[in-house]
Amino acid sequence: MSETVQKTIRYRVGIIGGTGNIGEGLARRICIGGKYDVSLGSRDPAKAETAADGVTCCLSERKCEIGATCSGGSNASVCDADIIILSVPFDKVESTIETIGKSAFENKIVVSLINPMLRFPKEKYFLPDRPAEGSAALAIKKMLPASAKLTTAFNNVASGKWMELDEELDYSVCVCGDDEEAKRIVMDLVASVSKLVPLDAGPLACAATIESITPLVITLAMRNGLKDVGVYFK
Amino acid sequence: MSETVQKTIRYRVGIIGGTGNIGEGLARRICIGGKYDVSLGSRDPAKAETAADGVTCCLSERKCEIGATCSGGSNASVCDADIIILSVPFDKVESTIETIGKSAFENKIVVSLINPMLRFPKEKYFLPDRPAEGSAALAIKKMLPASAKLTTAFNNVASGKWMELDEELDYSVCVCGDDEEAKRIVMDLVASVSKLVPLDAGPLACAATIESITPLVITLAMRNGLKDVGVYFK
Repeated sequence: MSETVQKTIRYRVGIIGGTGNIGEGLARRICIGGKYDVSLGSRDPAKAETAADGVTCCLSERKCEIGATCSGGSNASVCDADIIILSVPFDKVESTIETIGKSAFENKIVVSLINPMLRFPKEKYFLPDRPAEGSAALAIKKMLPASAKLTTAFNNVASGKWMELDEELDYSVCVCGDDEEAKRIVMDLVASVSKLVPLDAGPLACAATIESITPLVITLAMRNGLKDVGVYFK
Repeated sequence: MSETVQKTIRYRVGIIGGTGNIGEGLARRICIGGKYDVSLGSRDPAKAETAADGVTCCLSERKCEIGATCSGGSNASVCDADIIILSVPFDKVESTIETIGKSAFENKIVVSLINPMLRFPKEKYFLPDRPAEGSAALAIKKMLPASAKLTTAFNNVASGKWMELDEELDYSVCVCGDDEEAKRIVMDLVASVSKLVPLDAGPLACAATIESITPLVITLAMRNGLKDVGVYFK
């Protein structure tokens, strides 16, 4: 009888633009969950390495013994991951993809958490800034190779919440995508983070609404004396 | 010393299209709250009278001793109310306003709970069906006289929930409008219904997002085994 060796295979998550607040907070949250290894990418690889060291330090401080690892490098270097999260401003997405090279995204699961916004802070409201395609997601889909499986997720989590690691995140996270298997894989990733609740929110055509909820919750915060408004569908 | 007589003055709420599920349920909920008298309007006044009798019956069955009244009549007859709720399908709004006569809406507070939708039940998703103005609210604003104070409210409450009077409604209700005083008055109306939580969601320009949340929650229900999905921002 042959001996079977059981080995936990972790999906690897690459975060492009991983040195911002959201990217680094997301890396910590995913690593703490323990089910994924994370690579942080940046235009400046040294900065990404420092950020990754910060995540590793944080894991050891929190006595996480689950063995998830975090490394840093160039944006291109993180594209060997199974799931690539785009965490750069919308107006930098196209040039970032071009710099890395479109072919790096062939057959990859790509996640956009990007919500382009028009800001009217004096008048106390924000609006979605929809590109001609109808949503950032539909515009980004056109920038990627046809074989890439684009999904949206994490759009409405308040950016300030990612780094507050002692706070549980129990929000609903709407996940859109045209590839059902990729969507399931991304919903599993969402479920691995704190107490987030992934919800199937339909095909990529539905992403415009999810993207517009972020300027809405910022508006609600500004006008109703709230902070870091959470979104719950239940 | 002169004697002051205190009298409770109730705002009157008129519901145009008051014999649908939402209109009638809303009337019951508002009357039970006890702070507003309600008139139900319909193209068929006899139908509205029957519906109003149903509301009155329901109030007396529930032993509501607060004295709010509900009456029925033509759509035009309910326009003497202080707050007029439009509860008709989007494609019927313009003809309804024209039949009543635009001048009936001069200086009135008008509430739209209308969410035009594109339905793809086989593919299990719904989308907002935005008119050229960007939202139903902005389109309806153009149909009303300039002195009318249009707001949006109640858009995302699941229609099935209005009539289930034993169930508390504790959802967030986003209220948009360009007239701050009218918005406050409508937020008070929202707060009088069950445990609904009114939130100031900005000017009417922000209504597109609120309207799009209704097709989203229907999509979430269809795809995640949920029913009557509630919306909470907190």
